[in-house]
Amino acid sequence: MNTFGINLRLTTFGESHGPAIGGVLDGMPSRVHIDYDEIMTEMRARRPGSEGTSQRKEEDIPEILSGISPEGLTLGTPIGFIIRNRDARSSDYEELKYKYRPNHADYTYEMRYGIRDARGGGRSSARETASRVVAGAIAGQWLKTKEISIYAGLCEVGNRTVMNIENLSTADLSSLLASGYPVIKISEIIERHRPALIAEAERIRAEGDSVGGKVLCCISGLRSGVGNPVYAKLHARLAEGMMSINAAKSFEYGLSGVSSMRGSRVADIMTSSRWIGNTSGGIQGGISNGQTIYFTVGFKPTPSIPGEFHTVNSSMEDCIINIRGRHDPCVAIRAVPVVKAMASLVVADELLFTEHC
Amino acid sequence: MNTFGINLRLTTFGESHGPAIGGVLDGMPSRVHIDYDEIMTEMRARRPGSEGTSQRKEEDIPEILSGISPEGLTLGTPIGFIIRNRDARSSDYEELKYKYRPNHADYTYEMRYGIRDARGGGRSSARETASRVVAGAIAGQWLKTKEISIYAGLCEVGNRTVMNIENLSTADLSSLLASGYPVIKISEIIERHRPALIAEAERIRAEGDSVGGKVLCCISGLRSGVGNPVYAKLHARLAEGMMSINAAKSFEYGLSGVSSMRGSRVADIMTSSRWIGNTSGGIQGGISNGQTIYFTVGFKPTPSIPGEFHTVNSSMEDCIINIRGRHDPCVAIRAVPVVKAMASLVVADELLFTEHC
Amino acid sequence: MNTFGINLRLTTFGESHGPAIGGVLDGMPSRVHIDYDEIMTEMRARRPGSEGTSQRKEEDIPEILSGISPEGLTLGTPIGFIIRNRDARSSDYEELKYKYRPNHADYTYEMRYGIRDARGGGRSSARETASRVVAGAIAGQWLKTKEISIYAGLCEVGNRTVMNIENLSTADLSSLLASGYPVIKISEIIERHRPALIAEAERIRAEGDSVGGKVLCCISGLRSGVGNPVYAKLHARLAEGMMSINAAKSFEYGLSGVSSMRGSRVADIMTSSRWIGNTSGGIQGGISNGQTIYFTVGFKPTPSIPGEFHTVNSSMEDCIINIRGRHDPCVAIRAVPVVKAMASLVVADELLFTEHC
Amino acid sequence: MNTFGINLRLTTFGESHGPAIGGVLDGMPSRVHIDYDEIMTEMRARRPGSEGTSQRKEEDIPEILSGISPEGLTLGTPIGFIIRNRDARSSDYEELKYKYRPNHADYTYEMRYGIRDARGGGRSSARETASRVVAGAIAGQWLKTKEISIYAGLCEVGNRTVMNIENLSTADLSSLLASGYPVIKISEIIERHRPALIAEAERIRAEGDSVGGKVLCCISGLRSGVGNPVYAKLHARLAEGMMSINAAKSFEYGLSGVSSMRGSRVADIMTSSRWIGNTSGGIQGGISNGQTIYFTVGFKPTPSIPGEFHTVNSSMEDCIINIRGRHDPCVAIRAVPVVKAMASLVVADELLFTEHC
Repeated sequence: MNTFGINLRLTTFGESHGPAIGGVLDGMPSRVHIDYDEIMTEMRARRPGSEGTSQRKEEDIPEILSGISPEGLTLGTPIGFIIRNRDARSSDYEELKYKYRPNHADYTYEMRYGIRDARGGGRSSARETASRVVAGAIAGQWLKTKEISIYAGLCEVGNRTVMNIENLSTADLSSLLASGYPVIKISEIIERHRPALIAEAERIRAEGDSVGGKVLCCISGLRSGVGNPVYAKLHARLAEGMMSINAAKSFEYGLSGVSSMRGSRVADIMTSSRWIGNTSGGIQGGISNGQTIYFTVGFKPTPSIPGEFHTVNSSMEDCIINIRGRHDPCVAIRAVPVVKAMASLVVADELLFTEHC
Repeated sequence: MNTFGINLRLTTFGESHGPAIGGVLDGMPSRVHIDYDEIMTEMRARRPGSEGTSQRKEEDIPEILSGISPEGLTLGTPIGFIIRNRDARSSDYEELKYKYRPNHADYTYEMRYGIRDARGGGRSSARETASRVVAGAIAGQWLKTKEISIYAGLCEVGNRTVMNIENLSTADLSSLLASGYPVIKISEIIERHRPALIAEAERIRAEGDSVGGKVLCCISGLRSGVGNPVYAKLHARLAEGMMSINAAKSFEYGLSGVSSMRGSRVADIMTSSRWIGNTSGGIQGGISNGQTIYFTVGFKPTPSIPGEFHTVNSSMEDCIINIRGRHDPCVAIRAVPVVKAMASLVVADELLFTEHC
Repeated sequence: MNTFGINLRLTTFGESHGPAIGGVLDGMPSRVHIDYDEIMTEMRARRPGSEGTSQRKEEDIPEILSGISPEGLTLGTPIGFIIRNRDARSSDYEELKYKYRPNHADYTYEMRYGIRDARGGGRSSARETASRVVAGAIAGQWLKTKEISIYAGLCEVGNRTVMNIENLSTADLSSLLASGYPVIKISEIIERHRPALIAEAERIRAEGDSVGGKVLCCISGLRSGVGNPVYAKLHARLAEGMMSINAAKSFEYGLSGVSSMRGSRVADIMTSSRWIGNTSGGIQGGISNGQTIYFTVGFKPTPSIPGEFHTVNSSMEDCIINIRGRHDPCVAIRAVPVVKAMASLVVADELLFTEHC
Repeated sequence: MNTFGINLRLTTFGESHGPAIGGVLDGMPSRVHIDYDEIMTEMRARRPGSEGTSQRKEEDIPEILSGISPEGLTLGTPIGFIIRNRDARSSDYEELKYKYRPNHADYTYEMRYGIRDARGGGRSSARETASRVVAGAIAGQWLKTKEISIYAGLCEVGNRTVMNIENLSTADLSSLLASGYPVIKISEIIERHRPALIAEAERIRAEGDSVGGKVLCCISGLRSGVGNPVYAKLHARLAEGMMSINAAKSFEYGLSGVSSMRGSRVADIMTSSRWIGNTSGGIQGGISNGQTIYFTVGFKPTPSIPGEFHTVNSSMEDCIINIRGRHDPCVAIRAVPVVKAMASLVVADELLFTEHC
């Protein structure tokens, strides 16, 4: 199952150290103008080699092969694209061929398929997310034509969060959104503190360690009535999309920490002119209510920290593995554009889904 | 989309106050012995009218219409079942026909479909989950034949958690699981404190309020190599399933709070004889590693607390709504068997999915 | 896989001699008025016990359980329905429990599932098609609101065809449609000859034999631009739907016999005012062009003719089977409303599919 | 919907005159050895420029981008591949940009998407089938490891059929298969007459015309018990696959012309040692019975014959279109490897589907 989505479907392919990765985005409405530069802007945000991320260099220039006319309009046909793997130093991975990195997918892949491409994690490498970013950037351009905008930003690195920097509790930031505080303001707060959070990640890298983090995502401009009431609930689809991102461990939507609160505290009010409160996070019963949708995604610390570790080899014998390679101190940093991309794909999919009824 | 699952698919139907609810479970392997009593055991666990839950009385006796032979063996054909709605006092809901309950799906449903069955929430009523419990109890019996067992229990009601009762931090309980502490022991701790948590919910009901809660679920006995590496990751499917349960707001798998920890703290070790640590929660790269899988699901406090509330009617005019009806003080309590059912469906589905490769 | 359709999905369940059969129709647009009498009209057309069909008596009164408001409007939620099996004389089938009827699905079912409900064919009984007729009659009522009408009629029984009665070649009837001859006229010709064709079937039944037949189906009023260009081509979906009907062996759309003709003969012309010719059968490249869509479906003679036959039992030993039971001399007769129902489901599905882009 | 298949899914992309076409084959079992030369053998069979086909020259060298290890083993991950479009003379198609070719998909595409890539038919060009042949050749190599072999051959061009050459009726050839005549012998007959059929097509091309044709396909070695009993019947999936091929108009499986025969003629007999007769065509109730599966697919004459034709332009004004370009006199010829490829994909998919139960 390398396909995500129901009406708008992204199918990806490619091992991290094979000739190329790529994808097919099928179901895009026709006659949407696609600006290639906007795709590249998103691609640059997840590019390794920037601050706080792994140091592998990749140009990551997607080549669009179909589905967009020479004039830049979608044709309604599938959009195929590939990204060549240029900096694939397989020699880095020779040792991994026979040894399972702890807390990685090496062992489980082998159990699943009986074979694996050990070079850089193959399909389980975060490199796959580059294809998601391309597709999300395309879907996002359609959403923009509907005045829907999606923002994602880093809100926590380890214990250092935008909240404690700002002297806000976690719930407070969520409360700002819940009380109708404009997304643009939230994003300003978050972006202002990004350098401090990146610095925290770099500091921990310098200590030879890695650290977990959290990403906040807001969706504004989505009309009410989008989503599905039982199984393909809008937030269930968002959860599925987010949890499909490498290293994601948790998902929460609406007011943070609500599961330990009382009902009297989380009563939003609808009036003829406006909503008062948005503790629901813009979704009720799986369907959008027209308010800002917001959620957070928690990422574990990357398990690949430099050093020697006890593990087993493919004959299930004890051994020592020496982890070097090029890795991120805080994978949440590079996950930001991926969260945005998956949110774009889910929202576009549910919008298409809803519109035919 | 009223279908959940890929190879094992549950399709449900039914408004809470129509003639019946029901479902079709398609894809069950043939020749599995199904014990009707085990289905009823699960049904009783979610039945309204028990302590800490809403007081609507329903016999909730599912009638199995197909797919199981007179001898009690699955035929490999779809298992259709219905549950008649007997205690459907529509008069309770007359007022709701024209007024939107705040923080409920009333308004969003109307925006989605332009029509709704106002009696008791229609499809968005938690009554729909009875069908999930029937299906989950059937799937669970197949899993048992494979030595896979699934446990779900209430671990928090508001600020009162099994942890603070036991003088454990949230992460500690998770650590017990992470360190290979037997599921049976965890479930003992949790079940021992269930009365205290229920009492807490009742106390809050007596105050005319409701409260959020959390459910812990563990899956033991699942072999390694089950799941999918990119989009249908085992935990992404679990997240989707859990977030499709009414009132669910958050999902986290593996060691609790890992997104604020350092990598050096969450390094599990694989040895030739056993795993040391299970911070990953039994899944790596979306595929099971053979250890216990565990996760929590957070539920919001039910928004239906008795009283008068400001809201709007279907003409979008301001009005006052008087909430009475029969509701749960803490929906997490009744969600326990639903979490178990959805976990059973997801695990059975992924197992079928994996087995054909 | 007991589900048919992509956006409009019918899931059916039920063994022919279990407590009930039924289905769930999911994806119907909301606020469509459904007339129960129109469902019953279609049900009567396929009812056993009418002329030229098997003599099993069934009332076949579908009970609608959900998805339709008390006022008769669809809610957008799944429409669940059941039909109780009342005349299930299991004793007729005692012998079949251990012996495989030749040219039936008995052996293949056993190979597929390792177990089967031998009473009356279980899931492979044509009784399952009653659920399709219910669903098709519901979908058809939505299509009518869009001025789309679907006609199906019996056009051949063995060598006796509407064509040779009318002194027309097969291609001529097709040519009438191809030349824009009104559907209403075609249906008049076909309905006029129905008694003669039924009589032919009865005559062959009297001889202790069965006979194959063909059904013609026309869809008029569908706007251009509906369908999909590559895999879910409108005619490919129709073919799949038709070939899923019990005993169907062949499918042809557009001008009959076109695969042995020259291109110069089958050149339709588009003008600014009208089409000249419709040899394409209303579909080009998988997408409707606004003309009448027409196709035929061929059905084999039922293999269950009374008598003694050589076969094997479930221990794979040679034996004699004595076929009695209640069967149709020409299954094409009862297939007519099923062809119509499947066409309604496919067209409604593709229409929903197309509309969201 | 540019995806075909359920467990084994082929997603294709690419306009005929864009940078490339390609596909992603997802769901292939792991550790299957793939021989690239076998892919090329199939590709050459459908290559334009060979006798009896269009004269466009294409090297059609697929580049495999993922899913196969350097040693040639499938990894269980998606197999992505592209084929560059090298001979894309867009100028040939300038006129088509504004005029709709009669009996082509030009008009319907425009109605569907409101935009189209007019160069060579875009997605509706038969060029898309190159991707199917690549995928089918890969799936076929897995089937071979299970002793399943698939043969497809041209059996009719216009009125000239293998049958009248051999002095056999259509039903006779079918009867040979029905009576257990070895596939190898049937394929010998068919291949022996291929030159005569090609010559017939060339003769008709010389007359400035085109002609319809038929392809026969046989599947031998498939064990009993593969397929599904209700909607995803093995023959229904085959029909869907075949009718998704460009220019396909009809599908029939089992004994040819059975819908006009009597039941007494088409009674196969199962004995403890062997089957007597195979009028069913190897499938009963949608599930394979272990005998040879056979079917035919009829193709219309290509509508693109050289000359001037009345049609309309995109402003719906009458005009004359001058058809030149490079086209096949009998598209059935090049459809042969595509029929084989689609049969391979369907059989592999159903086999995977069945195996997990």
